[in-house]
Amino acid sequence: MKAYHLEKRDDLDIFALTLRDTERPQPGSHEVLMRVHASSLNFRDLLIRNNRYLVNPKPDVVALSDAAGEVVELGSAVTRVALGERICASYFPKWAAGSLSMSHAIEQFGCTRDGMLAEYALVPEQAAIHIPDHLSYEEAACLPCAAVTAWSSLTGARGVIPGETVLTIGSGGVALFGLQLARLFGARVLSITSSSSKAELLKKLGADAVVNYNENAYWERAIRELTHGRGVDHVIETGSAQTLPKSLACTAVGGRVALVAALASSGGQIDAKSLSGLFTLQRVFVGSRDDFEAMNRAISLHALRPVVDRVFPFSEAVDAYEHFEAQRHVGKVVIAGTPDSSQRT
Amino acid sequence: MKAYHLEKRDDLDIFALTLRDTERPQPGSHEVLMRVHASSLNFRDLLIRNNRYLVNPKPDVVALSDAAGEVVELGSAVTRVALGERICASYFPKWAAGSLSMSHAIEQFGCTRDGMLAEYALVPEQAAIHIPDHLSYEEAACLPCAAVTAWSSLTGARGVIPGETVLTIGSGGVALFGLQLARLFGARVLSITSSSSKAELLKKLGADAVVNYNENAYWERAIRELTHGRGVDHVIETGSAQTLPKSLACTAVGGRVALVAALASSGGQIDAKSLSGLFTLQRVFVGSRDDFEAMNRAISLHALRPVVDRVFPFSEAVDAYEHFEAQRHVGKVVIAGTPDSSQRT
Amino acid sequence: MKAYHLEKRDDLDIFALTLRDTERPQPGSHEVLMRVHASSLNFRDLLIRNNRYLVNPKPDVVALSDAAGEVVELGSAVTRVALGERICASYFPKWAAGSLSMSHAIEQFGCTRDGMLAEYALVPEQAAIHIPDHLSYEEAACLPCAAVTAWSSLTGARGVIPGETVLTIGSGGVALFGLQLARLFGARVLSITSSSSKAELLKKLGADAVVNYNENAYWERAIRELTHGRGVDHVIETGSAQTLPKSLACTAVGGRVALVAALASSGGQIDAKSLSGLFTLQRVFVGSRDDFEAMNRAISLHALRPVVDRVFPFSEAVDAYEHFEAQRHVGKVVIAGTPDSSQRT
Amino acid sequence: MKAYHLEKRDDLDIFALTLRDTERPQPGSHEVLMRVHASSLNFRDLLIRNNRYLVNPKPDVVALSDAAGEVVELGSAVTRVALGERICASYFPKWAAGSLSMSHAIEQFGCTRDGMLAEYALVPEQAAIHIPDHLSYEEAACLPCAAVTAWSSLTGARGVIPGETVLTIGSGGVALFGLQLARLFGARVLSITSSSSKAELLKKLGADAVVNYNENAYWERAIRELTHGRGVDHVIETGSAQTLPKSLACTAVGGRVALVAALASSGGQIDAKSLSGLFTLQRVFVGSRDDFEAMNRAISLHALRPVVDRVFPFSEAVDAYEHFEAQRHVGKVVIAGTPDSSQRT
Repeated sequence: MKAYHLEKRDDLDIFALTLRDTERPQPGSHEVLMRVHASSLNFRDLLIRNNRYLVNPKPDVVALSDAAGEVVELGSAVTRVALGERICASYFPKWAAGSLSMSHAIEQFGCTRDGMLAEYALVPEQAAIHIPDHLSYEEAACLPCAAVTAWSSLTGARGVIPGETVLTIGSGGVALFGLQLARLFGARVLSITSSSSKAELLKKLGADAVVNYNENAYWERAIRELTHGRGVDHVIETGSAQTLPKSLACTAVGGRVALVAALASSGGQIDAKSLSGLFTLQRVFVGSRDDFEAMNRAISLHALRPVVDRVFPFSEAVDAYEHFEAQRHVGKVVIAGTPDSSQRT
Repeated sequence: MKAYHLEKRDDLDIFALTLRDTERPQPGSHEVLMRVHASSLNFRDLLIRNNRYLVNPKPDVVALSDAAGEVVELGSAVTRVALGERICASYFPKWAAGSLSMSHAIEQFGCTRDGMLAEYALVPEQAAIHIPDHLSYEEAACLPCAAVTAWSSLTGARGVIPGETVLTIGSGGVALFGLQLARLFGARVLSITSSSSKAELLKKLGADAVVNYNENAYWERAIRELTHGRGVDHVIETGSAQTLPKSLACTAVGGRVALVAALASSGGQIDAKSLSGLFTLQRVFVGSRDDFEAMNRAISLHALRPVVDRVFPFSEAVDAYEHFEAQRHVGKVVIAGTPDSSQRT
Repeated sequence: MKAYHLEKRDDLDIFALTLRDTERPQPGSHEVLMRVHASSLNFRDLLIRNNRYLVNPKPDVVALSDAAGEVVELGSAVTRVALGERICASYFPKWAAGSLSMSHAIEQFGCTRDGMLAEYALVPEQAAIHIPDHLSYEEAACLPCAAVTAWSSLTGARGVIPGETVLTIGSGGVALFGLQLARLFGARVLSITSSSSKAELLKKLGADAVVNYNENAYWERAIRELTHGRGVDHVIETGSAQTLPKSLACTAVGGRVALVAALASSGGQIDAKSLSGLFTLQRVFVGSRDDFEAMNRAISLHALRPVVDRVFPFSEAVDAYEHFEAQRHVGKVVIAGTPDSSQRT
Repeated sequence: MKAYHLEKRDDLDIFALTLRDTERPQPGSHEVLMRVHASSLNFRDLLIRNNRYLVNPKPDVVALSDAAGEVVELGSAVTRVALGERICASYFPKWAAGSLSMSHAIEQFGCTRDGMLAEYALVPEQAAIHIPDHLSYEEAACLPCAAVTAWSSLTGARGVIPGETVLTIGSGGVALFGLQLARLFGARVLSITSSSSKAELLKKLGADAVVNYNENAYWERAIRELTHGRGVDHVIETGSAQTLPKSLACTAVGGRVALVAALASSGGQIDAKSLSGLFTLQRVFVGSRDDFEAMNRAISLHALRPVVDRVFPFSEAVDAYEHFEAQRHVGKVVIAGTPDSSQRT
């Protein structure tokens, strides 16, 4: 089968995304084979390809964690899914429920096990997730990492309740899902972004007010004023060492900041004084299979649709990475599956 | 001032609701005087008048817990509210936040301290709650007991999240608020009721499906089928010993039943076998001032309006009780404040 | 291998516990083979044998859920455990973490899949639990059902904190573990029991006070007095329809009653009035693998030892059932594994 | 009455602690007058005196938040306490329960309202806390700020359960209480400190192992090794911008860091990379009155005693500040109340 592998080359610091034709994998007793119909890119995929991710990928791993497809083959002991069903795979295939543990975290598609940028992918049955009926494969392929991360940022012991205010940072995948999902929780959403065209999109998705941080260096004050001085109850912090002190500064007493930001890769220094307020700062790492399924119930009930920036054909996967790295996108960057063999002939 | 008192008479088993003219009360240092513009009836007010409430009312207490009005006088030390502001009083005036304790529960308006069916009422500043701007006094008077009870049934450690299913029982005050508020949480709402006309109202308020329990003795099966066999995630159980086993029977594994029902007064036997599922049964008693304020933020953001059945003039308070007791209402039964003195002359 | 099976016989209403010699089972790719060194009895094992359990056992199932043993063979894909390690199996082998779901609950050792009253047992690697070092196999065999149930009764969203009071009912397996574990949480423990000799044992295990319910029909008042009128914060309700209204009656405002009782099997009626207090009633069904492991960390740190009533040899398993059914035990009834083949020759 | 006031003087950057003789204050209707028998020092008292606290003290405020004493006069409406009872005052007198809000936080003894370094102090009845019977006034005076802060660090949505590991930093008041209280939760405690003599004390109080950070610059690795690589479940972070990255580095996946540190005053930079793990970082600000009372139940049940470094006579309060500022203490620095008038004559 065709698949893009992360190849180590002597002439490159980063991995090369290389198309190869290999044997189609055979599902183990508790695995299913998924015909990949669409995959999508996340920031972690760039980090992995650029050799800057916390976890080292296995040699020649098939790229990408997020995809949607159809079950075409079942392992001998599989009971959770059936042939022909439309599924996604949960980001951490071993994390079924409860809290993340180190043993769960170590196993990731497109990193320590083969991923989704391929004709077919192996999915442990425990990680298979049924797709909401109203979504296309392209849309469903956007969910595993970004949408579940946003969902986890809004739920938990200090989850969002109606009437609370949620702040989102920018227009990346997690931010857009955060905005859309926060509306389902009955929250008011405030957003910051870098341009008026992005601001328009954010408002169309349901943001009550948007502050342009390029025009307003003290955006944290503007956000606080928009809450009549109280501060926001929740932040989905997808920014950096630059935004975190500001988002903490506009958080209400008792508020929660879900820290999604890849601070470990972008680096920088944080003034200790910014940690003086009464907040809870919670690192969020995607979520469990049960989280994914709970989110899908909400997405189905409300017929929520992901924002898809652009769908690249399978043959242009390298261009998709480039488009994503150049940050020319708003919404998810999707790569279609390989064309059907019927079409290919 | 004019006020209705619960009078003990030798010829009656129940209290007589008697209009009297007494001194206008003086606020203590931490109290405000509220000009009552509207009050509303709850089931507990019937129980108290009928001498069947768990807590004995103080002699000749002014009736009713729920009202809305205007601050017309301030105690010397008051800082939380200002003259002219529109307020409600929290049901348990001593319960500011956190968990209910016995010492909070003992103090209630219209029972152990003078209530709201009067021209004026004393409200401790800690119990004063600002009214959402978009609500009239008649609408705001519906909130303190019924709406906060519904809110508490939907929040807490096992609160509602989007995509979950909530079951409401009947069309009483708590049930209607429960339905309306559950929609703000992004939930799907299923309801049971006794007539097709009530079913229409429930659907108009947002119920996804309604089962008529007079036409379907096994309504719990119908509800379970509406969840594709999974069961509902939350029940706002405002029924009785008859409904509880059935609502437990259609609750999902891990679901929560908020027990609002006045089982202590209606009595009956419950088959122990009905307690065999995997549920959490949580008794709910209105809520704290902080709960009330959190709910008001949601009500304001979404411009939610209570369902008012009918507004009786102050002079017809006894008729309002009768209308309420006969269960001829759908929605809240409101009693207007006394006419303005300018109008009275 | 030798194993006791639950045999359906035409002449009996209940199943017959029948010793047979069958093929030693082969572990699947994600299973291990455990040499059983000790097993233990729980009330559910009686219900299953007596054909009164909620879930129907599969034909000729090997009996018992609880055991401890040694890993003697590994499936091809197993990574969580190694040969020679001492393990227990988690009660619900599919429930790794988070909340129980119906699909987890359906799979149980000694009921819907072969259990532990055998020379060898198959354990899915995800259900394998390492045994605390200080425990013998006989002691470790007591943990899976009773101890984890007690642990779940003390933890969760409304878990026990130091200085709170816990009430235990009787001297069954869950009650004794509840008492011992509650002490590790820094709680004060009050207990009720039926005899002064049992009261002595309970006090030796750490109960602060014990009320004999045979001598004191109003034991709920005695318990309340022991809390200076406040009531207990937690009940581990292992009783019946008779005890539940009384344990609710001595629960503090805001307290939690963990409902372990097999009310579904013992039946009876509960007066609805008993549900009028401000409690949370939470059904508890053992716990997940993660719960088991968390408990083991506590048991190891504090070197806690289960109370073993008596160890029957493997050949006297039927006598063990009889001893257990006659309620002549205090503490866990254990059945030893088959003698080593070295000893048997 | 005699009291130490924080006096602004033109020749000083910091406030002068000045003894004055003023009118004995009169309790308002909901206040009590407490005869102060002992007070104690916290780090925030130094910050206030040194004009470096977040909240500006009111002019000539009476110093100190923490004390214990006897009720000698009651306001006209007081019901929660009686004459002669032994009490402390809760740190935030307006925070009765639930979450801290800005309006609670603004009112503090020894800062925005008169404090405890005086013969008498006014205490709102809602803030009065009964003292555990087994404690002397000197011991009870240690509780309000430091012990309640430690308690809050161990409780909450992600509270400590038996078998978990808690890390404490140093030997300040919060750290010592954290160690002692964590033991009541059934936790294993690891500590870091600067000298072998302090390590001895920490072990005597129950620390399982102590690492000397002066001898081991990579103490976070030593701590992680002491947990067999898993990391600690909870940190009571009373350190600084220097310790926080290290304590995050030895926190287990899913662990919680309670951030008590006065980072806002000590300043410094934190490398954003240190925030990459899967933790919850929760700022802790003392606790509510209900938290204080819950803690007292634990302290009473287990007869826990604070570690008192030294008791200074009232006349040597300035020396007490100096002793505290020089960090020559281990345990709480206490100042006795004024001598009884009977003794004074």
